[in-house]
Amino acid sequence: MSKIIIGVMGAGLATPQDVALAYQLGKSIAENDWVLLTGGRKVGVMDAASKGAQAAGGLTIGILPHHNTTGISDAVDIAIVTDLGNARNNINVLSSQVIIACGIGLGTVSEIALALKNNKPVILLNQTELTEQFFKSLAEERVFLAKNVDLAIALTKEILQDLK
Amino acid sequence: MSKIIIGVMGAGLATPQDVALAYQLGKSIAENDWVLLTGGRKVGVMDAASKGAQAAGGLTIGILPHHNTTGISDAVDIAIVTDLGNARNNINVLSSQVIIACGIGLGTVSEIALALKNNKPVILLNQTELTEQFFKSLAEERVFLAKNVDLAIALTKEILQDLK
Amino acid sequence: MSKIIIGVMGAGLATPQDVALAYQLGKSIAENDWVLLTGGRKVGVMDAASKGAQAAGGLTIGILPHHNTTGISDAVDIAIVTDLGNARNNINVLSSQVIIACGIGLGTVSEIALALKNNKPVILLNQTELTEQFFKSLAEERVFLAKNVDLAIALTKEILQDLK
Amino acid sequence: MSKIIIGVMGAGLATPQDVALAYQLGKSIAENDWVLLTGGRKVGVMDAASKGAQAAGGLTIGILPHHNTTGISDAVDIAIVTDLGNARNNINVLSSQVIIACGIGLGTVSEIALALKNNKPVILLNQTELTEQFFKSLAEERVFLAKNVDLAIALTKEILQDLK
Repeated sequence: MSKIIIGVMGAGLATPQDVALAYQLGKSIAENDWVLLTGGRKVGVMDAASKGAQAAGGLTIGILPHHNTTGISDAVDIAIVTDLGNARNNINVLSSQVIIACGIGLGTVSEIALALKNNKPVILLNQTELTEQFFKSLAEERVFLAKNVDLAIALTKEILQDLK
Repeated sequence: MSKIIIGVMGAGLATPQDVALAYQLGKSIAENDWVLLTGGRKVGVMDAASKGAQAAGGLTIGILPHHNTTGISDAVDIAIVTDLGNARNNINVLSSQVIIACGIGLGTVSEIALALKNNKPVILLNQTELTEQFFKSLAEERVFLAKNVDLAIALTKEILQDLK
Repeated sequence: MSKIIIGVMGAGLATPQDVALAYQLGKSIAENDWVLLTGGRKVGVMDAASKGAQAAGGLTIGILPHHNTTGISDAVDIAIVTDLGNARNNINVLSSQVIIACGIGLGTVSEIALALKNNKPVILLNQTELTEQFFKSLAEERVFLAKNVDLAIALTKEILQDLK
Repeated sequence: MSKIIIGVMGAGLATPQDVALAYQLGKSIAENDWVLLTGGRKVGVMDAASKGAQAAGGLTIGILPHHNTTGISDAVDIAIVTDLGNARNNINVLSSQVIIACGIGLGTVSEIALALKNNKPVILLNQTELTEQFFKSLAEERVFLAKNVDLAIALTKEILQDLK
């Protein structure tokens, strides 16, 4: 059976707070023996989450947008080179059992929407009320809210239990 | 030089009001000698917009998600068969000079986000205040609001003028 | 019902003979009221076929590899912007009812293989015996051989008749 | 730094000999501490190579064509779900440092061509003279010939040394 993959989505241009959360999130994902998946670039949430997971001895996957590994995070173990640009966002979410959105950007919005469209559960971590309301209005039952990393991890465990 | 393409995005499961707006929108797009692009399926906004454009003698493109033309709208002239699933949403917006979102669904949200991410102008037609606020908060200057088809067409003309 | 699309595939770095054949092929496709589809770039077979089709008043589609229209042939009417790199080759063949390979390159080989894999008929125009033998050995019944444009067009008519 | 990935490509409908070679190849790849990448389905060369790699304690990636993991090989550790159909073949080769073609099918031909188009080295394992001649005629310097698994592994080591 293949490993459990948790996708962490978030902007390349992230706030310091989101970067700190992403690192902690990556660390906790690895401590739970889940594989981390991100967009793989050496920026923002993707880079921080990958570093956190590696620091805890976890395995990290990066789904890269370009035709080679240019701009890859140093903390990506498995580089999947797609040459799909932003269309790779659909692969990010289809390959993850649970998607956690940490911070927001236009790419992140497309990933949340594509995840929900594909019936995937999405955890919104520390998002604004506007973002929470918007996605809740579109897919009430698959959108989960978490104000910190511990709650996001607890929700992930519950969701994985339900998916079995 | 290639023709001007206007993309109309909207849900397959659309309200009667959105279907009526989409038909009118397709008609007006054709009357302005623009080519209409949609997701190409025989449902909701895509089907209605294509029918409207054909009724006015326009040319219609459908960017289809499956590996053949199963489920295609009868009103699609040019069938582009992608076999990309929802990843084809990125092609929808990259191929359009202006994107008009008529009604909302999870696929539509991904298209608006991908369009804005690619620096494309997006007109939100008759959307809720929540949807308008959400996208305005992410890309203020590329999100345009229109309460009816005539205003959406007027905005499209202005945007195309600016793009020249 | 959507229009009949004929795909012409061939190298960007084409021989003068292949460029001449592609122009003639594009012209004949337009004269038969079929829509021409190519990879859309301003080089080699794609460019020549599109010019030939436009010269005969035909409609031309270009399935572009990049995230914008950079490098597009002046003779493309409908620009489909994919940002998929060479993965767009699969769209080229899925969207065409018949595929004609004029000249050969590595991209062309991938297109012939993907077309045959998708059960599409492929006409090899003026190819070497090695190329003909190779593809015949893989999909005998869907590979057609033509030594000149007139024969390729005659074969296309027969195939389209059979597809009805 | 990300791990070295070796892609093994081959038909779903494979001969018993190709299946045996693929198993041995997967095993040797794992013994060299490389990660194995395949098309991920529970058939032919993909399945056999993945089983071989797992038997030797290696890590296996499957790049799946559908929108979920239906039809996945039991021996895939990391399931990348693409929903791209055959367009995922481009990801297979872009993500691999060296591509080994074991047996042949139309999908395999597209992968060899896409690999060479992307300047990737391709080892043809136990192929017919026709296949060898065909690809040698297209990209002489990036096509390598191996008559058995040991020679394919030795070539892979040399190529990886040169890529450093």
